[in-house]
Amino acid sequence: MTDQVLADLWPDVRPDAARRLMAAAVEAFAERGFHATTTRDIATAAGMSPAALYVHFPSKAAVLFAISRSGHERALAMVTEAAAGPGDPAARMAVLVAGFVTWHATRHRVARIVQYELGALDPADYAAVVAVRRRTEGVVRGLIEEGVAAGVFRVADVRTAARAVLSLGIDVARWYSGGSRPGAAELGRQYAVLVAGMLGAR
Amino acid sequence: MTDQVLADLWPDVRPDAARRLMAAAVEAFAERGFHATTTRDIATAAGMSPAALYVHFPSKAAVLFAISRSGHERALAMVTEAAAGPGDPAARMAVLVAGFVTWHATRHRVARIVQYELGALDPADYAAVVAVRRRTEGVVRGLIEEGVAAGVFRVADVRTAARAVLSLGIDVARWYSGGSRPGAAELGRQYAVLVAGMLGAR
Repeated sequence: MTDQVLADLWPDVRPDAARRLMAAAVEAFAERGFHATTTRDIATAAGMSPAALYVHFPSKAAVLFAISRSGHERALAMVTEAAAGPGDPAARMAVLVAGFVTWHATRHRVARIVQYELGALDPADYAAVVAVRRRTEGVVRGLIEEGVAAGVFRVADVRTAARAVLSLGIDVARWYSGGSRPGAAELGRQYAVLVAGMLGAR
Repeated sequence: MTDQVLADLWPDVRPDAARRLMAAAVEAFAERGFHATTTRDIATAAGMSPAALYVHFPSKAAVLFAISRSGHERALAMVTEAAAGPGDPAARMAVLVAGFVTWHATRHRVARIVQYELGALDPADYAAVVAVRRRTEGVVRGLIEEGVAAGVFRVADVRTAARAVLSLGIDVARWYSGGSRPGAAELGRQYAVLVAGMLGAR
């Protein structure tokens, strides 16, 4: 990946060398898992020495945290922006789902690490990531509650419905690959319609 | 886990020693991933010698395949039985979703290995598991098509809808834990209602 692609992927991370290490870590973790990956594996794949890695990250777990935190914070930002956008709750939910699903399809390799390697985080890092996840869930719950109050949505349990909405998007990272059809944007649109039905909006 | 619990979990595996090794492997893979787990780790956790493991499984990958194959074949059997059951397509889909979701919630530790460690399988084993997955997807697609033809379901794209139905159930294995609420059976019922809406059945 070029530095520009990495800058689009992790706009909140500096400098380019740190992003290159994160990209190398994503590949290594996907290939053989977090535990079987060494800091040397990551540094070598990024064309650096292990010592150069430690300039940017104190440990392998810190690289994982950087990947995980950035992914979770960007998901929260996207969801928050969609929920606060124009239109009624159904229109905002459609934007939210389309964006969330498309993000997980387009960045499925990174998203897999973000979503499935939480258990390998250091305890304090794990707690920080869980706090971001709770806020994301809270935004989705809030939008569903707003829709229920406005008579736009009809659900038996807001918490379960919010979980299902996020779950659909997250699981895209598991099964989606570069060759998957439909494309990421079209999949997002189709899932937005499915979610509308799930929330009783059609 | 007792031998009886393991027999309920893997009724198609014999003898008890093989099931104990599979249970130990589930814990070890969940703890540190497939690649960082050794056959010795698995054997020791099952109270056996590495030599005793090889009586039942030629390799660590063979243990993973046994876990994955059994899980996928039981999911296929459950889905097939539900799709061929009594009632209209909506009633059968409700049984299918409730069963599939409850299964992933109740057996979330095993299901995580079944669903997320596919990439570590040997190529021929991977192909065998993918063939079972395709049949499972085919059953769900067939039931949705039947419902659309009967005027019970309304979906824009049957393939995407089938993926979403299975995705909701599979992702339960990621987030569900022993302390999760609602309980596994109630979650299954709630998801069946959400899927009915998703398929335009209410």
